[in-house]
Amino acid sequence: MRALVMRPDSLLVEERPMPEPGPGQVLVKSLVCGICGSDLHLYRHAQHFYQMGLDSGVHAEVLDRGVILGHEFIGEIAAFGVETKQDLSIGQRVCSTPFLKGELESIAIGSTPLIDGAYAEYFLLSEELLIPVPDDLPSDAAALTEPLAIGLHAVNKAQLAEDRVAVVVGCGPIGLASIVALKLRGCNEIIAADYSEKRRQLAQALGATVVVNPAEADIFSAIPADHQEQPATVFECTGVNGVLGECIDAAPALSEIIVAGISHGEDSFTPATAIAKQLSIHFVMFYSSDEYADALRVLASGSINWQPWITGKVGLDGICLLYTSPSPRDLSTSRMPSSA
Amino acid sequence: MRALVMRPDSLLVEERPMPEPGPGQVLVKSLVCGICGSDLHLYRHAQHFYQMGLDSGVHAEVLDRGVILGHEFIGEIAAFGVETKQDLSIGQRVCSTPFLKGELESIAIGSTPLIDGAYAEYFLLSEELLIPVPDDLPSDAAALTEPLAIGLHAVNKAQLAEDRVAVVVGCGPIGLASIVALKLRGCNEIIAADYSEKRRQLAQALGATVVVNPAEADIFSAIPADHQEQPATVFECTGVNGVLGECIDAAPALSEIIVAGISHGEDSFTPATAIAKQLSIHFVMFYSSDEYADALRVLASGSINWQPWITGKVGLDGICLLYTSPSPRDLSTSRMPSSA
Repeated sequence: MRALVMRPDSLLVEERPMPEPGPGQVLVKSLVCGICGSDLHLYRHAQHFYQMGLDSGVHAEVLDRGVILGHEFIGEIAAFGVETKQDLSIGQRVCSTPFLKGELESIAIGSTPLIDGAYAEYFLLSEELLIPVPDDLPSDAAALTEPLAIGLHAVNKAQLAEDRVAVVVGCGPIGLASIVALKLRGCNEIIAADYSEKRRQLAQALGATVVVNPAEADIFSAIPADHQEQPATVFECTGVNGVLGECIDAAPALSEIIVAGISHGEDSFTPATAIAKQLSIHFVMFYSSDEYADALRVLASGSINWQPWITGKVGLDGICLLYTSPSPRDLSTSRMPSSA
Repeated sequence: MRALVMRPDSLLVEERPMPEPGPGQVLVKSLVCGICGSDLHLYRHAQHFYQMGLDSGVHAEVLDRGVILGHEFIGEIAAFGVETKQDLSIGQRVCSTPFLKGELESIAIGSTPLIDGAYAEYFLLSEELLIPVPDDLPSDAAALTEPLAIGLHAVNKAQLAEDRVAVVVGCGPIGLASIVALKLRGCNEIIAADYSEKRRQLAQALGATVVVNPAEADIFSAIPADHQEQPATVFECTGVNGVLGECIDAAPALSEIIVAGISHGEDSFTPATAIAKQLSIHFVMFYSSDEYADALRVLASGSINWQPWITGKVGLDGICLLYTSPSPRDLSTSRMPSSA
């Protein structure tokens, strides 16, 4: 099969052996897979991901054998391994949290380079984790399940009191997912900030009540006057170093900050400011299986205007051409189409 | 009256006019007042406190007129101002949260240099906030109400699940107060770390189950083997830059970190580590009036072995001699007696 393989200094489509489902596993044909910001991070800064739990021995070994990323996937069942119940049929569209059931624990697929992901014609999932995709939900929409689950998880971490103002800093996929989740939780005051006009428009389409361009206006001044002195719930969704510190400096006293953007390396802030304001900071990642299932349910319910979220589509070859531009550093400014 | 007055470059006992209680206020004779670490910080780094809410104009003005610190006080009622109910008698021992009721809000006494505190023969309190000290509770013990309230507030911020291990980093007064509060909340596994043998002994006397000298052993390795993989509740009570980052690096996944030590200036940490572990960090300061009253009740109940907490006593002149040592920087290593 063809797959997009990441190695220490390349990202190319290669011919790879068809994966063989082990006990309890199914072979899945990849239909749609969103390009996650963490995939871009991983390609450019793989070493940072090893701060997140993998030792450098594993790092070198897995990068040398080549890694297939891709964890925002929808696929259809192509074959069953042994010890499967086969309650679903061949051809059934499915999604799943991006983990494979292991002997001791689940291991992330694609999102960390331990288990191959869905930037390939086929990949493996655990039958036990499969969720059928409702027939009338397009695969493009269903592929938003994973980023939406991240938004739900981030919002579920917040103690959203009634009348609480939310401030979403960064309107990339996770910021947008947080906005959607905030709307679902009944939050009626959502300030969303991004430098990109297109992203601000998306934020508004998905439920932000006020949008701010930080180049032109102060984000926290956009909080309505009657809420200026009240605690807010701030979502740091940029993953850019320094932004958390800015949120700490600007947030009202007793605010919560949910950190959903993954920044790398060291970052700095002023603890005395956080203490004087008695801020709480929740660092979040992933979601529970319930939150993942909730996200699919929400998408299937038709209550979300998901179409604007799909900003472009490419095939395997399209990704390859973009990724092998002369300098990987150019990626941050390239017009990389992404589906999530 | 005599009072210990802090000015931009001195800390000396001066003769000051007797304070005059305003409407709703009482004049209180100072009996005992603990020396708080924040008083030392404030003397040496007053500018940092202005990161915490006061503008530099106020700063210069209040320092120039001279500030009386001291907020861990017990006093006795000496006189009533107008518009007081006078339910308590002259001579009654009282304590109070270190705030004066203002027109719009309460303002800290002593702990920030807006309202004069209790390092003086007399000071002012709001009648409405007074709590009588039970007759059989020594004033030395009652003066521990304020630091104990900080410990109670810090522990109340934690989501202490059953069987949760607590790790208290730094066994100064706030670390010790947190240990006492953890015991009161029923926590049975309390790891306490400090470089000082004396403080480790205090920690053990007040309820720590394991004590660690970080110079000799890893703090988090002291977590019992059967709890090593479980979330812990970590109390950062040192206020030393860099320690929060070390706690983030070492804490088990899904842990909470309660930051009760006030560190100043910039501090740095690795957000990706906090995200990978989904840590929550609560920055805490002060306490509610209920927590303050709880602290006094606990001390009065006799259930706490408070005596070891009192490490020394000085009068106003003793403080003065210590504070006016040739270099204020020497304070950190001086054997300053403190009662809290």
